[in-house]
Amino acid sequence: MIKLEHPYSFDPILDLIIERTVDVPKELVWKAWTTPSQLVQWFCPLPWKTIHCEIDLIPGGKFHTIMASPEGEQFPNTGCYLEIIPQKRLVWTDALSPGFRPSVSKPMNSFTYLTAIIELESVGNSTKYRAIALHSDEENRKRHEEMGFDVGWNTVLDQMVALIKEGKLGN
Amino acid sequence: MIKLEHPYSFDPILDLIIERTVDVPKELVWKAWTTPSQLVQWFCPLPWKTIHCEIDLIPGGKFHTIMASPEGEQFPNTGCYLEIIPQKRLVWTDALSPGFRPSVSKPMNSFTYLTAIIELESVGNSTKYRAIALHSDEENRKRHEEMGFDVGWNTVLDQMVALIKEGKLGN
Repeated sequence: MIKLEHPYSFDPILDLIIERTVDVPKELVWKAWTTPSQLVQWFCPLPWKTIHCEIDLIPGGKFHTIMASPEGEQFPNTGCYLEIIPQKRLVWTDALSPGFRPSVSKPMNSFTYLTAIIELESVGNSTKYRAIALHSDEENRKRHEEMGFDVGWNTVLDQMVALIKEGKLGN
Repeated sequence: MIKLEHPYSFDPILDLIIERTVDVPKELVWKAWTTPSQLVQWFCPLPWKTIHCEIDLIPGGKFHTIMASPEGEQFPNTGCYLEIIPQKRLVWTDALSPGFRPSVSKPMNSFTYLTAIIELESVGNSTKYRAIALHSDEENRKRHEEMGFDVGWNTVLDQMVALIKEGKLGN
């Protein structure tokens, strides 16, 4: 039973989560998530790349990325931040555009929107890391699972941690 | 040109607004918007009624109403708050459910979701009142306009102001 702080809730029928302890400090994980020049280095599982990132770190502020496939096809994603508690919790969604404007509806039966919650907690010099994806319904949770949520979100975390350990993300 | 505080933006192609000065103090307008027992008294244009209201006044908190037609048909609406600055700005959306969870997709070509912004400012003992509806696209703005946004949102404000003046909303 995963219990989140009010008003958040985790429902195993609707939602997905990864929880791990990584041996880098949470301050550096927070920076990796909130600094565009750092985020582009780890945010996509290689050989995919994140070729652009904009972050306006206030509630309602823009979170925009463009991913590129190895063949060069581009996949832009635009959402906005919902809650920002430095070094503790970062929440955003693509169900809303910047300025909290509703996003354009997607066709029924396609993968729709998600809200992502990143939670960090210090455990000595390590970080208890939680990444949660909230979905509107079971169908979308399943689609996200089949798209490879578990491998994907773990892989990009591995990429981030490796770069932090190599001192490549700066401070 | 209507200029909103960052990160909000008003686009006349996408959005709708009413702006009026009402001769009641903003403290009472704020209470009318944020107290369920008060909101149910004015939130629907009569003879429609608001028969239920739940308010959890934190970002991500639930905003739930049930409207009833004169024939007794019920129309529930559930969303969540996005920004709460007491007596200044109240923002919510139904594109997200409580806990910032994405709402279930609606069919294409139906009226979809909106984000609403209420802004209050004192002008002597009166209140400059702004109510803004943000939409994802022009089609949704048009649908909302044709559903009677202007008359509807003005009528419920009239109802609220009348109740405040009659001392019927309490303090």
